[in-house]
Amino acid sequence: MEDTSSGSGPHVLRWLNASAVLGVVRAADQATLSDLMEATGLTRPTVAQAVATLERAGWIEILRNEADGGARRIGRPAQRVRFRAEAGHLVGVDVGPHKTMAIVTDLAGTVLAQVRHEIDGVHQGGELATDVLALTESALGEAGVAPESVAAIGVGTPGVVADGEVLMAPSIPGWAGNRLGADLTTRFDCPVLIDNDVNLAVLAENWHRRGGPEGTLAFVHWGARLGAGLLIGGRLHRGHAASAGEIGFLDLDEEPRERLSTDRMGPLESIAGAEAIAALAESVVRRRRTPLRELLAARTDPLDVSPIFHCAAEGDPVALSIVDTVAARFARGLAPLFLLLDPDLVIIGGGVSRGGPVLLDAVERHVRRRTLVPPRLEMSELGDAAVALGGVRLALDRTEETLFSAAGLSAEG
Amino acid sequence: MEDTSSGSGPHVLRWLNASAVLGVVRAADQATLSDLMEATGLTRPTVAQAVATLERAGWIEILRNEADGGARRIGRPAQRVRFRAEAGHLVGVDVGPHKTMAIVTDLAGTVLAQVRHEIDGVHQGGELATDVLALTESALGEAGVAPESVAAIGVGTPGVVADGEVLMAPSIPGWAGNRLGADLTTRFDCPVLIDNDVNLAVLAENWHRRGGPEGTLAFVHWGARLGAGLLIGGRLHRGHAASAGEIGFLDLDEEPRERLSTDRMGPLESIAGAEAIAALAESVVRRRRTPLRELLAARTDPLDVSPIFHCAAEGDPVALSIVDTVAARFARGLAPLFLLLDPDLVIIGGGVSRGGPVLLDAVERHVRRRTLVPPRLEMSELGDAAVALGGVRLALDRTEETLFSAAGLSAEG
Repeated sequence: MEDTSSGSGPHVLRWLNASAVLGVVRAADQATLSDLMEATGLTRPTVAQAVATLERAGWIEILRNEADGGARRIGRPAQRVRFRAEAGHLVGVDVGPHKTMAIVTDLAGTVLAQVRHEIDGVHQGGELATDVLALTESALGEAGVAPESVAAIGVGTPGVVADGEVLMAPSIPGWAGNRLGADLTTRFDCPVLIDNDVNLAVLAENWHRRGGPEGTLAFVHWGARLGAGLLIGGRLHRGHAASAGEIGFLDLDEEPRERLSTDRMGPLESIAGAEAIAALAESVVRRRRTPLRELLAARTDPLDVSPIFHCAAEGDPVALSIVDTVAARFARGLAPLFLLLDPDLVIIGGGVSRGGPVLLDAVERHVRRRTLVPPRLEMSELGDAAVALGGVRLALDRTEETLFSAAGLSAEG
Repeated sequence: MEDTSSGSGPHVLRWLNASAVLGVVRAADQATLSDLMEATGLTRPTVAQAVATLERAGWIEILRNEADGGARRIGRPAQRVRFRAEAGHLVGVDVGPHKTMAIVTDLAGTVLAQVRHEIDGVHQGGELATDVLALTESALGEAGVAPESVAAIGVGTPGVVADGEVLMAPSIPGWAGNRLGADLTTRFDCPVLIDNDVNLAVLAENWHRRGGPEGTLAFVHWGARLGAGLLIGGRLHRGHAASAGEIGFLDLDEEPRERLSTDRMGPLESIAGAEAIAALAESVVRRRRTPLRELLAARTDPLDVSPIFHCAAEGDPVALSIVDTVAARFARGLAPLFLLLDPDLVIIGGGVSRGGPVLLDAVERHVRRRTLVPPRLEMSELGDAAVALGGVRLALDRTEETLFSAAGLSAEG
């Protein structure tokens, strides 16, 4: 409490009030002033002031009474307001080593277009920014949205991101220090926010589940590499050096292996990531009789581990034993997250998470052996759109801030 | 932002303002209205309103101009206010398996008395509440503070504490479900707050270091048992089931040992806690020639591991090798905290932390091998008073809340 400084004027209050009103109108699409008073607990003059602010900014529209064609009746008409979802648009972009994805939504978060671009091999940083610009334009074209209508763009990328700059991104050569933010800002003349991909994924998961600001939500990306995004008390937990959540680098052995380096895979991802899972499966099917052998031989992507989970779900004992080993390795690294943070929920995403219930059950069973309270674990429902949707959420947050600061309101006072 | 509800009226603002003014007066002991305006960024009428609120509540005193004996001069006199540290008192209590401690302070947090009671063996829950009542009275007597002057009491205890009740405290038989809170409330007629001991320790460390609400501070208790208190963004991180920070139960081995139970020591504390350290040292000195052998034989408390660090600091190679092993075991469990949270600082407290620089250096060296960014680690400067001082901090927070709600202000609106 002693740290409260000048950041507490009436501006903050008006900002909070307008934000609360906006949230209710957006959720309900349309509402009367009475609805808004009831949902926010604010007085009529305060709600009216917030409505005026939001109307001036173009976010809501005041509807005339339809029954009498807009003519004044005796007494106070039940004024209705409508959220203008079409007043602006948002773009979320996922930049990965092997794919890029762009999602375009309106201000209500309704997805209007989702475009995906996969490449063989690994992106090179230099071409990537050009690729993202083209992808974003293509997504806007598909959505029928003019570039001038883009209010903000949120971009997720692997690596360490601080203050909107990619400081380190070992999985994409040449990507650190890229000019993507500047390029996008120049092209679309709007704010561009860049953050770590798992940070965006946890924002998207919380949004998808309509989570509030309380409690702790973790998103664990389980693909070729491993990393966690943490949302604690409604805020992204980025850490002192923006490197929180690096569970792929957990070295749990008594004697640590070589010195850790972000240029190489971390100890946990090198035993529990998609490559390690594929290698384990290939070595097992050479020794044991299983329908998995043919399925593995037939796939085109060597990192595609889905046949393992497919066979396990059908009851193949060899595939089940592989799933059990994989789950045990992953659980060994996941348990410290549970013991340290006692989170409300951990959501597993990334390519391996498509393993479904047979994998989730095995992970849950192995984590439970290492924790004091039963772990709360789910697979992501957002699939590989999580990062791009998180970009949309980040862009939406910024757009609301911009709205309120343009209206002379600000969370900073 | 959509979760903002009725909790944002002018009450909140007045509460924040009065709290900011109080913080400045307390830190400066005395201040003029101009000082307060400058330090808080608030306007003169707002500061005057806050001063009036605080004076009515008895927390500050308005000093008449001393130079002219209180007579009015022409023009506006430079009105000074003084923080009335003596207006109330706080008690912090540390309830441990082997000792209890009570600290009495004034409202400025100045320690007036510190009383400690050690027992042989382990406390029994039944007698413990009686012991704490007697200890508190004895501390108040030593401080010359009347029981009626106690504004609030904060108590730290091992185990799981939720909503002021000890749900589980395996290290003190019969302590779970105790009536200490009710007994203290009855005796002293004031609010009694009970929380987990490491949670209080991290509050005390943050207070001691004048830490603000930003960043992440962890306090790791390293004694017979291990546990961590986490302060994230200015808030205690308790976890979903109030069981965050249980690093003593980390089982890092590939194959987990027996099923975890709070009735037994956890895997990490059973290899890195004080008992394990003592056992290791005893087994080593039987095999190798070292001055440590006699020192260990001479001590009265079998859990006193200080001779190891004493000999290591003097350069004894046998003691140094023990320190290295101990630090390596501890670092293996501490590294996940760094990789997951990337904290601003980790403070090590508890009996083993008295090992000093020779131990800190070894721990730092071993953690560094397991983390991506250099770990920021310090030993506690509060010694075994950390938990009781955290109790004082908790009591002080509650007292301020009570003050403001009595004045018609509230953080909840």
